Amino acid sequence: MKDQALTEKPLDVRPPFPDSLARTPMSIAGSQQVATESVAQRAYRLDREHVFHSWSAQDTLDPMVITQAEGSSVWDGDGRKYLDFSSQLVNTNIGHQHPRVIAAIQEQAARLCTIAPQYVNEARSEAARLIAERTPGDLNRVFFTNGGADANEHAVRMARLVTGRYKVLTTYRSYHGGTATAVNMTGDPRRWPSDLGTSGTLHFWGPFLYRSAFHAQSQEEECARALEHLEQVLTFEGPDTIAAVVLESIPGTAGVMVPPPGYMRGVRELCDRFGIMMIADEVMTGFGRTGAWFAIGEAGVVPDLLTFAKGVNSGYVPLGGVAINREIASYFGKRPYPGGLTYSGHPLATAAAVATINVMEDEGIVENARRLGEEIFGPRLRAIAERHPSVGEVRGTGAMWALELVRDPATREPLAPYGGTSPAMAELTVFLKAEGMLPFTNFNRIHVVPPCNISDTDAAEGLRLIDTALDIADRYVSA
Amino acid sequence: MKDQALTEKPLDVRPPFPDSLARTPMSIAGSQQVATESVAQRAYRLDREHVFHSWSAQDTLDPMVITQAEGSSVWDGDGRKYLDFSSQLVNTNIGHQHPRVIAAIQEQAARLCTIAPQYVNEARSEAARLIAERTPGDLNRVFFTNGGADANEHAVRMARLVTGRYKVLTTYRSYHGGTATAVNMTGDPRRWPSDLGTSGTLHFWGPFLYRSAFHAQSQEEECARALEHLEQVLTFEGPDTIAAVVLESIPGTAGVMVPPPGYMRGVRELCDRFGIMMIADEVMTGFGRTGAWFAIGEAGVVPDLLTFAKGVNSGYVPLGGVAINREIASYFGKRPYPGGLTYSGHPLATAAAVATINVMEDEGIVENARRLGEEIFGPRLRAIAERHPSVGEVRGTGAMWALELVRDPATREPLAPYGGTSPAMAELTVFLKAEGMLPFTNFNRIHVVPPCNISDTDAAEGLRLIDTALDIADRYVSA
Ligand SMILES: Cc1ncc(COP(=O)(O)O)c(C=O)c1O
Ligand SMILES: Cc1ncc(COP(=O)(O)O)c(C=O)c1O
Repeated sequence: MKDQALTEKPLDVRPPFPDSLARTPMSIAGSQQVATESVAQRAYRLDREHVFHSWSAQDTLDPMVITQAEGSSVWDGDGRKYLDFSSQLVNTNIGHQHPRVIAAIQEQAARLCTIAPQYVNEARSEAARLIAERTPGDLNRVFFTNGGADANEHAVRMARLVTGRYKVLTTYRSYHGGTATAVNMTGDPRRWPSDLGTSGTLHFWGPFLYRSAFHAQSQEEECARALEHLEQVLTFEGPDTIAAVVLESIPGTAGVMVPPPGYMRGVRELCDRFGIMMIADEVMTGFGRTGAWFAIGEAGVVPDLLTFAKGVNSGYVPLGGVAINREIASYFGKRPYPGGLTYSGHPLATAAAVATINVMEDEGIVENARRLGEEIFGPRLRAIAERHPSVGEVRGTGAMWALELVRDPATREPLAPYGGTSPAMAELTVFLKAEGMLPFTNFNRIHVVPPCNISDTDAAEGLRLIDTALDIADRYVSA
Repeated sequence: MKDQALTEKPLDVRPPFPDSLARTPMSIAGSQQVATESVAQRAYRLDREHVFHSWSAQDTLDPMVITQAEGSSVWDGDGRKYLDFSSQLVNTNIGHQHPRVIAAIQEQAARLCTIAPQYVNEARSEAARLIAERTPGDLNRVFFTNGGADANEHAVRMARLVTGRYKVLTTYRSYHGGTATAVNMTGDPRRWPSDLGTSGTLHFWGPFLYRSAFHAQSQEEECARALEHLEQVLTFEGPDTIAAVVLESIPGTAGVMVPPPGYMRGVRELCDRFGIMMIADEVMTGFGRTGAWFAIGEAGVVPDLLTFAKGVNSGYVPLGGVAINREIASYFGKRPYPGGLTYSGHPLATAAAVATINVMEDEGIVENARRLGEEIFGPRLRAIAERHPSVGEVRGTGAMWALELVRDPATREPLAPYGGTSPAMAELTVFLKAEGMLPFTNFNRIHVVPPCNISDTDAAEGLRLIDTALDIADRYVSA
């Protein structure tokens, strides 16, 4: 693992655009302007002209050009280096451009890029085996998708068909993806504009002691009351109408609320009692992020279905999937499963997964994430919290942490309102970027979610920057 | 373009599994069995143990192993060569393993595999430009997704938000993908198991003279009556409640029903009259398949939104997207677009698109598809139809054709029931595979959808096999 100064220059100067990728700018340009344009400038101009960005008002964007990346670092169009404390969208668990995974992608590209889902392919078979060996219990069959949203769509379809029931329960404070069912499962403001009458998804409250929905005073109380609440919701909704309870094993974007010990087991028991499928969304938590292959396995619980994406191949090639237990797989043994997609089990994507999982195993990246959490992030973030009144709570495990920032430690009033931002949070983000970091922020939180193989030096440097940045937040704390 | 005998052996014998892709079978095996297992046998065994296949009953499958592919050919686990007359799932428009696209993927892999959607990336910018230049009219902004289904999900969300309306009209005999909104838009039996009360998608009848829903006798009559029908449905549903009319520019899997001249223009006029968004699903038709970059452009019509996937990079890396017109892009200029996905504008996927589009341009692959349709597929398929009473109709354009097989040319009773198969169709498929072809069949149809750069020799060989196979179908025609 490299420990480079944050201000270092990019490692190489590459030709603007290889011929096999595109014609040279000169031959495609219609204007003089292009002759003096750098690669990054051209990329920026074309982006502003032709790329439509997610979750944004297009005219208000001034996006950063990224031209290069390696490990926990990325470089912008001016050759400036940034520490990637976000793992992009919490997907590069092995960091950027791991040479063994790059080589595997290149080899598979030379071998066989694409083949339809109905055939057998060795990369797909091997990826399915490696994943099945790491999922808890009897989750031994894998249905591959392109990402997290469609993984959740297919998991819910399976649960609905197996149970013959329709309703799906998820928590407020959750994110499950952008397609219709997935976004309606989502318990954050991203659902609202798409919540146009799609029935069948209901939300309940998960455990979150710091902002307890149950007026609990301890983790034990929060756990017991959250389970009682879920049981009440199930009872009043009619257990026989519920196909599935879907939970992020640790809610991610919503704030890294590690569930209290016993909660997941309690949900499992409720699901068993009522014949409800338990679906664990491990899109963000899976593949090392929490210091385990899967967070739910660590909790000693086996869900009926488990969805994954991101970390499975660090996002080097789009890939997601559903791990399926024996009962559900055999339900679709004689009956056709009525779902699919063109790129299910894509050879290039699954070859990247095979290489990624082997790299994680060989380099002990999962164990490293655990060590980072226990030895570096946990202790140092708690020390940082001691120093800063703006830090209401520190939560996390492995390489997945959140700082809950507040305007008032007593009332716990968040530093930005739910679903929004604030001058304080904006100032904080601008400061961190100016100091050479890509942070992950959401509402009133900063998340600490770097690659699981970040060097200790880079981890320390990132924490130092956050420590400094929190002085800004402290100024907004009411005296 | 290569003209190899169908029985030729694979081009090279590759080592079983490169180290960077996986450990060698010996080091991972738990059993003796593996020592004597071939790569293909191992892939097959692991597939049967761990891979869950789309649209199928898992226990009834005996899937073919594919170990290698090139151009219009694939090789199975025993080294047997097959002519790919399906382009997999009608996605390899440039054939398998085009060397320039492989090189571009390898170069981009070495450069930068993944970057979050909020940044600027040169491959993404360039792909957006190349696509925007080829879409009709003012469809100049591109929102990238992972495939066709999520492209349609996002297009519908945009139409709903822009119009403030909810209902979406699509045709019976259509396929739009497997996620919730997309599958409910779908007008074929694949929708039924997922049609669990998701409201908002309604179906009408599109033009299809051979099985006219309007008792029409000519294309002109079919066109006029189909438009009258759509106008009636709009009027009785309430035009002010309809966000979008979504049409495959030429319905693909549903049977290649090329719309009569004037139909698309008529739909455009109805949409304009009522302030309804027109969405063209070009997932299958786009990027050369029909002998044009986009079929709707050829029809002289500019939709408000156009969805694509498959041919954009021949499926070498999962990619889809929505091309957005000026009005809709500017609607989301100041207001955030509330939708997204982790891999939107994935560098590796968009680099493959850049290379694919440039290859198609440089090698005249779109023009070749048109020529194939005009000079080879059209005339020869019509000649085949003359010889075989089982062929009720030949339809198509470019490299996209369907043979509508019937039990009785007079009654037009299909050779397999809607949504099902039959001994005749099964026998036909088995025969073609045994003769060394991967056919694309659906219900009572054989589609002719090879790569758009298939050699004339391979095209002729495929047609010869179909011609022979139809003798089987003829035996089922009632005397
Ligand atoms: C927990 C969780 N589920 C699902 C998703 C959706 O995944 P994708 O963006 O690949 O559709 C995400 C993405 O952030 C996620 O964090
Ligand atoms: C016309 C059309 N739209 C959408 C889709 C769905 O695309 P995907 O399988 O990539 O989700 C398909 C796939 O066959 C299609 O043919």
